[in-house]
Amino acid sequence: MFPKIDGERLWASIQDLAKVGAYTDSVSGLVGVNRLALTDADRDGRRLVRGWFEAAGLEVRVDRIGNTYGVRRGRRRDLARIMAGSHIDSVPTGGAFDGCLGVLGALEVVRTLNDAGLSTDRDLEIGFFTDEEGARFGTDMLGSATACGRLPIETAYGLADKDGTTVKGELERIGFLGPAPERVTPPAAYVECHVEQGPILATRGRDLGAVVGVQAISWYELTLEGKSAHAGTTPMGLRKDAGLVASRINVELHRMATSGVYGAEMRATMGRFDPVPDRVNIVPGRVICTVDLRNPDDAAMARAEADLFGFLKALAAETGVAITWRQTAQTHSVKFSEVVLSVITARMEAHGLSYERILSGAGHDAQEFAAICPTAMIFVPGLYDGISHNPREYSTPEACARGVQILCETMLELSKT
Amino acid sequence: MFPKIDGERLWASIQDLAKVGAYTDSVSGLVGVNRLALTDADRDGRRLVRGWFEAAGLEVRVDRIGNTYGVRRGRRRDLARIMAGSHIDSVPTGGAFDGCLGVLGALEVVRTLNDAGLSTDRDLEIGFFTDEEGARFGTDMLGSATACGRLPIETAYGLADKDGTTVKGELERIGFLGPAPERVTPPAAYVECHVEQGPILATRGRDLGAVVGVQAISWYELTLEGKSAHAGTTPMGLRKDAGLVASRINVELHRMATSGVYGAEMRATMGRFDPVPDRVNIVPGRVICTVDLRNPDDAAMARAEADLFGFLKALAAETGVAITWRQTAQTHSVKFSEVVLSVITARMEAHGLSYERILSGAGHDAQEFAAICPTAMIFVPGLYDGISHNPREYSTPEACARGVQILCETMLELSKT
Repeated sequence: MFPKIDGERLWASIQDLAKVGAYTDSVSGLVGVNRLALTDADRDGRRLVRGWFEAAGLEVRVDRIGNTYGVRRGRRRDLARIMAGSHIDSVPTGGAFDGCLGVLGALEVVRTLNDAGLSTDRDLEIGFFTDEEGARFGTDMLGSATACGRLPIETAYGLADKDGTTVKGELERIGFLGPAPERVTPPAAYVECHVEQGPILATRGRDLGAVVGVQAISWYELTLEGKSAHAGTTPMGLRKDAGLVASRINVELHRMATSGVYGAEMRATMGRFDPVPDRVNIVPGRVICTVDLRNPDDAAMARAEADLFGFLKALAAETGVAITWRQTAQTHSVKFSEVVLSVITARMEAHGLSYERILSGAGHDAQEFAAICPTAMIFVPGLYDGISHNPREYSTPEACARGVQILCETMLELSKT
Repeated sequence: MFPKIDGERLWASIQDLAKVGAYTDSVSGLVGVNRLALTDADRDGRRLVRGWFEAAGLEVRVDRIGNTYGVRRGRRRDLARIMAGSHIDSVPTGGAFDGCLGVLGALEVVRTLNDAGLSTDRDLEIGFFTDEEGARFGTDMLGSATACGRLPIETAYGLADKDGTTVKGELERIGFLGPAPERVTPPAAYVECHVEQGPILATRGRDLGAVVGVQAISWYELTLEGKSAHAGTTPMGLRKDAGLVASRINVELHRMATSGVYGAEMRATMGRFDPVPDRVNIVPGRVICTVDLRNPDDAAMARAEADLFGFLKALAAETGVAITWRQTAQTHSVKFSEVVLSVITARMEAHGLSYERILSGAGHDAQEFAAICPTAMIFVPGLYDGISHNPREYSTPEACARGVQILCETMLELSKT
């Protein structure tokens, strides 16, 4: 009933694209990928994939924010299309799979249908979105957020990297400032295949994940102002140790996240911790640190934030260390479509695959589409605890093929009228 | 009975010496002192002070490690001399008082006796010691430790800075590789006046401090090896968060130091805290951090260290984060002479000064002399919580004069036969 995708062709495409922007990590010696958005490497990657879209017979268009789409026409042009996509930009120290699996997986679906001579009722549209990572211009999901209407294009155009170079200027420079309107007509459904970028599927021995939504994310940068002091001459009772206060916040974050009070899926991380002056015999007078909160439930997230702020105020009063904070990122939780998920899980079950209904801890282009159409995602497990944004990022050829087979079958099911 | 020292002359000398190696701090705009040991600035400072020694009629000698002494002859050359001294080298971002007050204070004592036409029974000897700070060659108390026999001169000569330049080469280059034997004959007593470099005297409203000893110091560098992980996708239970473990160590250090179990004067500080990769959305996989322990009692210090190691082992077992440590500095506690202290405090009481018997949290040249002769120190309070190793370091002219007056009277008392 369903054609079988060509796992070897998929793998070869992933490896070919990974050569663009490849670099050798100086520490590990591993080969990683650096295709930061709108750089020359990103341009070269875009040209390669656009060429593959064209070679697959797709009607290709580039929109005004650089999102690049390819349409495979169906029999019924009066019906809304089925979309699949992801991104091909990377963080500066990325791997071969993040984003690329979704784009090249969707391409493999098209190639498979072409080889099998299969047509669909609905149009199928695949694409890659500009700067999903946000690693250069500071705003992730840049292209898909513009396409789906959350981010005004003039705002997106005006974003600049640390050298002051703007998104619009770079789009023009690399030849991807397209003429097509940036706002998409809502498709009938959007499906995205992506590597998990986490350890859950591997830890639980699952073949694939059916992604039921994306966690709310809230980031804060905290500034703790105590008083630098000599570690030898300053009695404990006369200190305002910003490092100790930051440590207490870190311990409290862990207590909160594991308390169950904010649900079983609450996560809290202090990733940055920068004391000043950072010397063995000086009590740190200042610390800049960060808090990363995740929760699948917006209300639970709001309660966690309020409790954290209360803790910070009490801690500042107790210790005399001034604590200020500013939110540096916030996205609300996203729930994916149970209709699309039911198709995905039915296809997984038909193949006898083990799967897990899983929340995404990272942001994805799919969350932008969830605002305008039924949307869901398929997660492919990665080795090494699903490490990502790292040259070690690796999913096996078999796992990748498994995920794309489900993507293919899901698109075919959804394209039926 | 006792001559009065000239506070204005003392202050002028301190300010004149501070011009050598003066720099303007780019952040605060304050003028600080950078006379790192055996640099050109240190050479210029040495020349200035040696010139003052000579102008005061002292018999000057430079020894083989660059320590520079001036002797004022007494009537009884068969008796052991009374010594006073300190250092004139600084950390790269130092102030005008650290060390210099003790050297120029001793010089002011000589000048005062000269002006008053007073002779003493015993010889008086003053001096400045090479590289007390250890900020360039990594070994503090370099000159005094060599003079008092703890550090072999060949070891001292071979020490190199980060550019590979050696102590001996630099001594030669700046013209302070002297001919005098480096080992001193034990004097009858050694007295050192120094800024407190801490907040205790100012906080308790004391005029001066009578320093009863130096705390034991123990430094460790800890390496915590957990696992870097995505903050959004990695459940709390699957983490090996090196940052959280470092934070728990920091909290435990504070608990230990304030528990009273290791005495009331136990101090513990985590000054460095360097997570890798130090990014908002990545669980730190590695942390390098430091522990600075101080205790006036060697046995209590040993108990604290043993308890800390036990805690680290249990914490590593509990969390799966590997913790290794190496000791980067260790000095044992020093008790100063109650005989010398009784003279110091009697002179303070005679002037109606308020004083505190105080432990030094920092190391000083006096601790080396404590191993070979009766020794004690006088502490002068500093403003701004006694901040030191910083351009803000400041003790008032009145406080400096007060300390040096007591130094003068103590030396005169001790020089009596």
